[in-house]
Amino acid sequence: MGTIKDAIYLENISEVKRILEEEPNLIDEKDENGVLMALLAAKTGNLALVRYIVEYSRASMDITDNEHKNMLHYAALSGSVEVCRYLVERVGLSPLTGDNNLVTPIDIAVNNKFFDLQSYFEEEIGAKYNDLYRNPIRTGFYPDPSIVRVEDTYYMVNSSFIYFPCIPVSESKDLIHWRIIGYAITNPEWAALDNLEGGRGYWAPDISYYNGKFYITATYRLNDDGTIYRKQIVVSSDKPEGPYSKPAIIDEDGIDPSIFTDDDGKRYMLLNRGARILPLSDDATRQIGEAHLLYYGDNKRAPEGPHLLKKDGYYYLFEAEGGTGPGHRITVSRSRELMGRYMPCPYNPIMRQNDENAIIQRCGHGKPVCTQNGQWYMVYLCGRKIGDGYSLLGRETAIDPIEWTADGWPIVNSLNGPSTLQIKPDLPECIWESSLDDDFGNDWLSSDWMFPRAPEFDGIVLENSYVKVKGSRYDLNSMHAKNILLRRQQNFRFEAVCKLRMPQIYPGQDVGMTCYYDENTFLKFGIFATKEENPRLLVKVAEYIDGYKEGKSAELDFSKEYVYLKTETNYLTRTFSYSYDGLNYTTVDVLDNVYYLCDEGLKKGKRFTGAMIGMYAYAGSFGQEYTDDAGNHGSDVIYGEFDFFNYKTL
Amino acid sequence: MGTIKDAIYLENISEVKRILEEEPNLIDEKDENGVLMALLAAKTGNLALVRYIVEYSRASMDITDNEHKNMLHYAALSGSVEVCRYLVERVGLSPLTGDNNLVTPIDIAVNNKFFDLQSYFEEEIGAKYNDLYRNPIRTGFYPDPSIVRVEDTYYMVNSSFIYFPCIPVSESKDLIHWRIIGYAITNPEWAALDNLEGGRGYWAPDISYYNGKFYITATYRLNDDGTIYRKQIVVSSDKPEGPYSKPAIIDEDGIDPSIFTDDDGKRYMLLNRGARILPLSDDATRQIGEAHLLYYGDNKRAPEGPHLLKKDGYYYLFEAEGGTGPGHRITVSRSRELMGRYMPCPYNPIMRQNDENAIIQRCGHGKPVCTQNGQWYMVYLCGRKIGDGYSLLGRETAIDPIEWTADGWPIVNSLNGPSTLQIKPDLPECIWESSLDDDFGNDWLSSDWMFPRAPEFDGIVLENSYVKVKGSRYDLNSMHAKNILLRRQQNFRFEAVCKLRMPQIYPGQDVGMTCYYDENTFLKFGIFATKEENPRLLVKVAEYIDGYKEGKSAELDFSKEYVYLKTETNYLTRTFSYSYDGLNYTTVDVLDNVYYLCDEGLKKGKRFTGAMIGMYAYAGSFGQEYTDDAGNHGSDVIYGEFDFFNYKTL
Repeated sequence: MGTIKDAIYLENISEVKRILEEEPNLIDEKDENGVLMALLAAKTGNLALVRYIVEYSRASMDITDNEHKNMLHYAALSGSVEVCRYLVERVGLSPLTGDNNLVTPIDIAVNNKFFDLQSYFEEEIGAKYNDLYRNPIRTGFYPDPSIVRVEDTYYMVNSSFIYFPCIPVSESKDLIHWRIIGYAITNPEWAALDNLEGGRGYWAPDISYYNGKFYITATYRLNDDGTIYRKQIVVSSDKPEGPYSKPAIIDEDGIDPSIFTDDDGKRYMLLNRGARILPLSDDATRQIGEAHLLYYGDNKRAPEGPHLLKKDGYYYLFEAEGGTGPGHRITVSRSRELMGRYMPCPYNPIMRQNDENAIIQRCGHGKPVCTQNGQWYMVYLCGRKIGDGYSLLGRETAIDPIEWTADGWPIVNSLNGPSTLQIKPDLPECIWESSLDDDFGNDWLSSDWMFPRAPEFDGIVLENSYVKVKGSRYDLNSMHAKNILLRRQQNFRFEAVCKLRMPQIYPGQDVGMTCYYDENTFLKFGIFATKEENPRLLVKVAEYIDGYKEGKSAELDFSKEYVYLKTETNYLTRTFSYSYDGLNYTTVDVLDNVYYLCDEGLKKGKRFTGAMIGMYAYAGSFGQEYTDDAGNHGSDVIYGEFDFFNYKTL
Repeated sequence: MGTIKDAIYLENISEVKRILEEEPNLIDEKDENGVLMALLAAKTGNLALVRYIVEYSRASMDITDNEHKNMLHYAALSGSVEVCRYLVERVGLSPLTGDNNLVTPIDIAVNNKFFDLQSYFEEEIGAKYNDLYRNPIRTGFYPDPSIVRVEDTYYMVNSSFIYFPCIPVSESKDLIHWRIIGYAITNPEWAALDNLEGGRGYWAPDISYYNGKFYITATYRLNDDGTIYRKQIVVSSDKPEGPYSKPAIIDEDGIDPSIFTDDDGKRYMLLNRGARILPLSDDATRQIGEAHLLYYGDNKRAPEGPHLLKKDGYYYLFEAEGGTGPGHRITVSRSRELMGRYMPCPYNPIMRQNDENAIIQRCGHGKPVCTQNGQWYMVYLCGRKIGDGYSLLGRETAIDPIEWTADGWPIVNSLNGPSTLQIKPDLPECIWESSLDDDFGNDWLSSDWMFPRAPEFDGIVLENSYVKVKGSRYDLNSMHAKNILLRRQQNFRFEAVCKLRMPQIYPGQDVGMTCYYDENTFLKFGIFATKEENPRLLVKVAEYIDGYKEGKSAELDFSKEYVYLKTETNYLTRTFSYSYDGLNYTTVDVLDNVYYLCDEGLKKGKRFTGAMIGMYAYAGSFGQEYTDDAGNHGSDVIYGEFDFFNYKTL
């Protein structure tokens, strides 16, 4: 008597039938890799076998393996067009469903050169494989997107929280490829971030365009200790890249402001909770009347991110609801009058991830945009879940098409939630030149870099193709730490390498790489001077999770001129190694679970950003010239001198 | 310094504001009854206070109290039209949302004689209070409804499982009020229930009408021990009440058959998994071709209950999905060709309970019907959750309107899930004469009564306004127990009283009332003869939860001619008392938690029915004439003689 697995492998249908008639639950068995029997059956490419399992066994057709591959992924592995056609047309599975690595059935067909299957899927999708894009379109810390089109160019802003410069402004020609062109606030004094804890600062901006000017509004989120902890700011500029005006303050509580200008030229701010509206002066810098509630929201929980759109005689009111976690969603309501009664869309939520096991989660907080060709799209935030629900990359930006129903409601991606692969907008493709590597060869710092709070005026020096990071007098666990040079972690698997001059540091000082979330959780992979009579230099790993925890270290030969630090990232694992020549590396330490670099990694403060990686220098907490207990003389004016910082996706 | 509660009671808005600015989380405090501060604020009827809480505090507008009363319920208690109007129009709450007792805000207005508020709510709803009906329309064990209209009359069938007679057929003129008029199977031999365990038998019937004949099809569910455990039966009759023909067997695996007749007169059976279709002979008694999958379903989990509807050139395919628990739902797909490709409705699920804390849950398994006036309705099953998710009343029948969207899709109750109160169909009201009391004065047994499996041919005798229940030779914990006379428990609070002649019984025998789920879980409130030299009669409570557990008892004076037994039900509590005169009752026992009478109360067998209450007689497991160990002589031919059985809703 064979097992069900054997019968499936042998495609012995009568034996499969005999076994399941006797013991129907055996269809729920898994093989040694944890793969359910029905998935194995799909992989045979045997239509009669697959039909029997689908139509007569207890298997559900929503089953997936540990990587979230479903029946159609497995059938695609067989290359069988007829099995895939059956699963698409009769079972209703989609060639565009992503697994945990965003791999779809059509990717499998393409990667395996199953040309017939690729053709069938393309016919089913209605587009060629090369005409598809993949979500999220902006990976890593790009939350709370807002968008505006001016002629044939699209502009996007995202939240920056305590990061400086504040509120990145990006541009695109095709809605898929973006580059940062400027920031809403670049003046450290205007930014006013110095005394804000991690997760505060500039929340959920909106960009709009009116009468030749770009307007950006955002919430300025203070610490929790006062009675007023939220205000709104408005800046404007003739040019999307800035410079923008000094922030005007709208002293009204709430978050997620957006600016709406009605056809009569009257200007308003929309603000949560729910969607409140308040009249603004013509230049949008002053509130000139009280706030009124237009509509609270359809889900009734954490209604935010209000945006108004006027179209075909209706005011459409979009809101994000359910909180920026797994229940996040976008809803819409509409009214014939601006101040009239808003009736909710019967199809709400018009965007939501309903598959709690899919990798793309937290979908919501969106804004619609219409292309110059009349196609509608929604940009929205999402977060990718790994492990026990960790959003390691923070909240990212995705985009999906909007369809208008026959009764005039906008629905996103046919109400199927976020797409993994989707047909590109009908726009000329425009891929910006860009490199994830930085050799610091310019006179300016690339817009990939940012700082927790503004750096010191002399904190960052670009010189001879080096970036010199001035040592901070506060350690990274302080919100007064300065000059921490960071970039977004944009992938689950990547390698970051920096080359630096062997640092001239004294006991209590350190210089190196950091994987950073905020002042409450980060890790250092740095070069430390020991507190001994004859100090040595150690390259060492130290984790900080609301307190330091020392990792492994190795002694450095300080006679070398340069040292290379390398951090390899594989989801929640980090491998740290160093080299003197950039070729031969020695591993210092491996951390298995850096969960604390995720949004959900610690219950402290506001965690809405995502993991960063970059460079730091810590000058120790001394006076300017000093002698330590061991008799060592030192200075707190030190620099980390970095020749390059390269980031390579693996 | 006052508390927030005091400030709310005093309607001191500046104090509420001061307190919440300092400590925003205080809005989440509860009063001594567990009522959240925002609900208390709503109850003040003070618009400025309510506006402040809604627009500036952290309170969500989906909050409820322990009875699931929301902000609008509380505002309705104040009678304030302006606060209620604000909560309806700006917050989006509905006057028709039910609490755990199905009490809605408009009920509160009506019960408190707040006429202005009632008028406002009626205007908002678009109907007078008297023109509303309340779900579920059929309470207690009425699962898996199927419906058909013939001229101006509606017929419904429901699952009966192992209950006899099998598959009740009910009629209605207004879709709201129903009465049982017959059964699909009344011949015990045809029923073939004798050897089936609880929860097997006749599952999920469908009723249809074609060429002057009513057709009922259902799944005949056998025990799990064979290799074939599901077949389909078809019966037909000229008259809806029957008698119906001997069941024809369609030997195809699956559940939830329905019959579809195409415009060309060709006949088909739809059957799960997913929606498979198989051709039937013209008389619908024989399968004349293979089954094919039309469409698996949109949710991909436990797709069942397929129904086809042809309308405006489309074949609409309705399915129940997600399993008959909290994930239950109705989805629809459509095709231009019967055997063509079915595309899912973008608005799926078209019926689902999305509020996991609402009392009406498990909504799904529906069938659409069009009235003679062109209005469309969906009948569907639901279950009401009490305690830790117990469906004490089993699965009940509800009805909600269907709207057809501009793009030709049917959606139920505007996608708002099940309604509590809803506008009545535009049909002449027709309330059937009926009584929940039974004095057994007729020559026939009322159609409220049923039996687990068919009774013995001489098991039930109606004589001189008594029902005589012949003692079963098997106890209630056996599937061979006979003559158990039961009716549906249709309310969470009710009182059942029966009067019986003091029974002539011997040690090991008992007669009385039972609260029954199936042979695995029930309780007896009966009269028992003790096993002593001089046997006494005890009135005693005994619970059976996969094994007996004795409760309290009291000795009876067997010289009395009659005894009255009373069971008072209050959700999961049962109070048992007896009387000799029907006026003065003595309490025997109180059971606090009869969870085992709920569908979820035991993990054994198939539990899809709900709690029953009724009468039984157990003759003991002896030979016909016997002498027991204590020397008592007896007979196993005994009768419980019941004068009446009254059921009163509390």
